[in-house]
Amino acid sequence: MKIHGQQYRSIWLADDGRSVQIIDQTRLPHDFSIMTLRDAQSAARAIREMWVRGAPLIGATAAYGMALGVYNDPSDQAIAGYQELLLMARPTAVNLRWALERVVGRIMPLPKEQRAAAAYAEAAVICDEDVAINSAIGNHGLELIKGIRRNKSGKEPVRILTHCNAGWLATVDWGTALAPIYKAHDAGIHVQVWVDETRPRNQGATLTAWELGAHGVPFDLVVDNAGGHLMQHGAVDLCLVGTDRTTKRGDVCNKIGTYLKALAAQDNHVPFYVALPSPTIDWQIDDGLQEIPIEERGPEEVTHIQGKASDGQLLKVQISPDNTTARNPAFDVTPATLVTGLITERGICEASEDGLVALFPEHTHPAV
Amino acid sequence: MKIHGQQYRSIWLADDGRSVQIIDQTRLPHDFSIMTLRDAQSAARAIREMWVRGAPLIGATAAYGMALGVYNDPSDQAIAGYQELLLMARPTAVNLRWALERVVGRIMPLPKEQRAAAAYAEAAVICDEDVAINSAIGNHGLELIKGIRRNKSGKEPVRILTHCNAGWLATVDWGTALAPIYKAHDAGIHVQVWVDETRPRNQGATLTAWELGAHGVPFDLVVDNAGGHLMQHGAVDLCLVGTDRTTKRGDVCNKIGTYLKALAAQDNHVPFYVALPSPTIDWQIDDGLQEIPIEERGPEEVTHIQGKASDGQLLKVQISPDNTTARNPAFDVTPATLVTGLITERGICEASEDGLVALFPEHTHPAV
Repeated sequence: MKIHGQQYRSIWLADDGRSVQIIDQTRLPHDFSIMTLRDAQSAARAIREMWVRGAPLIGATAAYGMALGVYNDPSDQAIAGYQELLLMARPTAVNLRWALERVVGRIMPLPKEQRAAAAYAEAAVICDEDVAINSAIGNHGLELIKGIRRNKSGKEPVRILTHCNAGWLATVDWGTALAPIYKAHDAGIHVQVWVDETRPRNQGATLTAWELGAHGVPFDLVVDNAGGHLMQHGAVDLCLVGTDRTTKRGDVCNKIGTYLKALAAQDNHVPFYVALPSPTIDWQIDDGLQEIPIEERGPEEVTHIQGKASDGQLLKVQISPDNTTARNPAFDVTPATLVTGLITERGICEASEDGLVALFPEHTHPAV
Repeated sequence: MKIHGQQYRSIWLADDGRSVQIIDQTRLPHDFSIMTLRDAQSAARAIREMWVRGAPLIGATAAYGMALGVYNDPSDQAIAGYQELLLMARPTAVNLRWALERVVGRIMPLPKEQRAAAAYAEAAVICDEDVAINSAIGNHGLELIKGIRRNKSGKEPVRILTHCNAGWLATVDWGTALAPIYKAHDAGIHVQVWVDETRPRNQGATLTAWELGAHGVPFDLVVDNAGGHLMQHGAVDLCLVGTDRTTKRGDVCNKIGTYLKALAAQDNHVPFYVALPSPTIDWQIDDGLQEIPIEERGPEEVTHIQGKASDGQLLKVQISPDNTTARNPAFDVTPATLVTGLITERGICEASEDGLVALFPEHTHPAV
């Protein structure tokens, strides 16, 4: 998407044709800083330190991380090491695993001297596929927004609440949950976005606010606590969020707090849609609440917060008393029963195994 | 309650017998700073700037603010002016109005030269009554916690989630929602408190964490997004919150985000109790969602956050991009249907008009 009129993706091959460049998303929205990755270690660090985040971009970064590693050492042993290193950088992200398996599967049958070029090529295909997938998600979601527009009287905007950042910064381009919003805005539909701050890492207040603003989409920032009240008062026409991992029956594992918004949406009859590229579907598991391990991150994300001081410096301040203990589960699971529909690259379906299998029949289980 | 072993209330008459002292709660938990109020204007400012907050403490501060004003000018006209000034400092707080009407009702029949002394006396009575009320709330809530303790196997603590600060800092002493927790802790019951951060003003991360820590009650800080996940996983035995305003049918207007926790409690069969002194009941209104105007505060509370920098300085940092627009509703309404029970100074009742009137029969409506 555009940043002050210039087209960007969130990851790209550098001019040297070998290094890979990303935006350090931990410095957004205050600094726009491009980082160059030169080996698998720096790619793993970019994932671990969340310079890149969002399931699809993590996958793309891991794929390029493997290519960077293989360029240095294409041996079987080295490849196994890169795979382990990159996988451990964010254990929850299912399409990190998927992207790595895809690149490794592509290059392992090849002679060592062909592996690096093939890995770069495969990473590039993964990126281009992600862009195509997200654009398709955007087109399907656009129809949903057009439907809401038709049913709304007057000149009020279509008001969409989103949580965390499932925008183009979380993918290679377009985003997942924000793709329909960009498509609607570009089509001249008046949308107005409620951006959840998304504590503790504030991806909404920083990244979603930044990318919507840079593209010119109207939005208002709200604290995570406000969404229920807005829905009670009819100020939300649609909730639209992303997902890190979706079970085959349609349970959704997304940023902590998503479940609370889904409860409020149900209580107030607000449609609650989840946008997802099919690689984030984990066809191996049914019950998200029982089967998905939830990453617990460090307490300092809760007790401290980063921002820009009045002199322009980026710094962290401590919110809570000295020596406060904090707990920091990073995701929660929204049961399929609270999800109105899933927006995939193949269309919109009910959040159920029947719904998903109808769109992805290749995952039909054989009769037992 | 105690601060590092020393007994405090949240408001008290200074040694000069005329000025009133409070703790500047906007500087907690990083600085413990006592402020002296010398006139009605500074009392109004203390309320408006949230040096004091919490419905009962706001009422007590307004009562003393009236006394400070009347000491300077006991004329009818001046009293009307103080009343307007103090009332406008926090228009949502129902027992601010109640406390002012009580002091004014007490002093207006008196000759001017007796009004100041009577106003101070009435403010002191309001404070002592608040302490007695909260202690009674604590005793009733203690029985509830004892019941949970009896039904829990093993040595696991009783885990209680609270939102915002309904502790002794929000009242004159004991607190409302935290009173049962202090009573249980002091009675040797192992309680462990989940403290919601409570964006945007972080009263949980700052005030609740500080006062629980100072008294020695074990707690863990969590972001507001985490409570639903904790309840899904059986990590919460009881939700216990305060209220700024309760309708006669039991709808509860409390800090923004309370409604989301009540939805999660219902979805996971976690008891959700609201502690309230009866002055916060508004017997004039039924439907909280339709009838309670919600204060909207400034956007900078959302876009900026205060904390302690690594050099110990208190400062504000900006979280979101420059020129971000934000919306900041300060309260939400939790419908009575989501409330398991109301803990009042007279006992625990169902959140309904029948439940409340059974405890407060003086508010029974005559048959029409």
